[in-house]
Amino acid sequence: MKSKFIVIEGLEGAGKTTAREAVVAVLHEQGIEDVVFTREPGGTPLAEQLRVLVKQGIDGEQVSDKAELLMLYAARVQLVENVIKPALARGAWVVGDRHDLSSQAYQGGGRGLDAQLMTTLRDAVLGDFRPDLTLYLDVTPEIGLQRARARGELDRIEQESLNFFTRTRERYQALAAADPTIKTIDAMQPIENVTASLKDVLRQWLAGQAA
Amino acid sequence: MKSKFIVIEGLEGAGKTTAREAVVAVLHEQGIEDVVFTREPGGTPLAEQLRVLVKQGIDGEQVSDKAELLMLYAARVQLVENVIKPALARGAWVVGDRHDLSSQAYQGGGRGLDAQLMTTLRDAVLGDFRPDLTLYLDVTPEIGLQRARARGELDRIEQESLNFFTRTRERYQALAAADPTIKTIDAMQPIENVTASLKDVLRQWLAGQAA
Repeated sequence: MKSKFIVIEGLEGAGKTTAREAVVAVLHEQGIEDVVFTREPGGTPLAEQLRVLVKQGIDGEQVSDKAELLMLYAARVQLVENVIKPALARGAWVVGDRHDLSSQAYQGGGRGLDAQLMTTLRDAVLGDFRPDLTLYLDVTPEIGLQRARARGELDRIEQESLNFFTRTRERYQALAAADPTIKTIDAMQPIENVTASLKDVLRQWLAGQAA
Repeated sequence: MKSKFIVIEGLEGAGKTTAREAVVAVLHEQGIEDVVFTREPGGTPLAEQLRVLVKQGIDGEQVSDKAELLMLYAARVQLVENVIKPALARGAWVVGDRHDLSSQAYQGGGRGLDAQLMTTLRDAVLGDFRPDLTLYLDVTPEIGLQRARARGELDRIEQESLNFFTRTRERYQALAAADPTIKTIDAMQPIENVTASLKDVLRQWLAGQAA
């Protein structure tokens, strides 16, 4: 099977780390061992520097919504050009913790940036490069943030209001409903059930790819 | 007179620092004392961090042309929103060492990035915000680089090939020819003559504004 780019998406506390392990387990079942992991923003030295600027900001300086979006895309294009595309080209599978859908949901939905700007920038920067499959873990902000808080301190974006995350989730849901390459998994179930659902979805998708 | 945003542009070694002093001298003649200086990329703490990433890159990592452009625009929108617009709003004049025309010339011309991407990104990020006047100091790359080298070590972008700077200058010239708010000054003359030409151009423009 041709190598694929699979992305895990969702709000903070949706369970992306556990989901990643489940994805790898299913890939291993299929004999797929050469798997590259990425996270966004980040995944190259320059992109990780941009991650710090986006997540922490600079003391006392307001980060404009557009500057945040542009830094995220700068990090993304570094990762796509220097890591994801070369990995796919050599036959490795790539499993990403977040990709473009996060910007569409957080900056487009949460921050309310103009829809035209969002699609224009995506198309201008990424061309037609898209994940083959996105696994979207759907949780309410209340549940997600409760889990994220239990893990420790929140970063600049995680400190946003509940309304921000509600808008983000709504955008995730709307985009997932409109795009057959995005599969929604109910991540409010008990964790074993989330993992089981995710594995089912992934196995079914892989079976369809092989056909 | 309503406060204005005046930008000085040109290749490395064109004489932008000397030009800035001449601009300030003319503004003082007119009784304009409240002048804010900016440089791009930079001019806010976050934008200065981005300047370092753009100018130095990261050891061993190829910086994609698009990532470079996106970081420049992230820095620019921070500067415009947090410094330039507030300064103009309180009645200060702003004198900028580089602004958007640099991206159009270096990234659009020098790097050869797609013209559609360049205008789309500018319009999406800056809206209709433009300098009131741009003073473009025109030099050949040979002369400019000779002067820049005499000043010391060259950064990542200054180490580009002569062809890169030739394409950059050609884009500067083409854009200046098409835009009446960009005035071209022959910066290959002896320095006193460059300064005299620039002062003449600026005095004439100011007289037109006052009318």
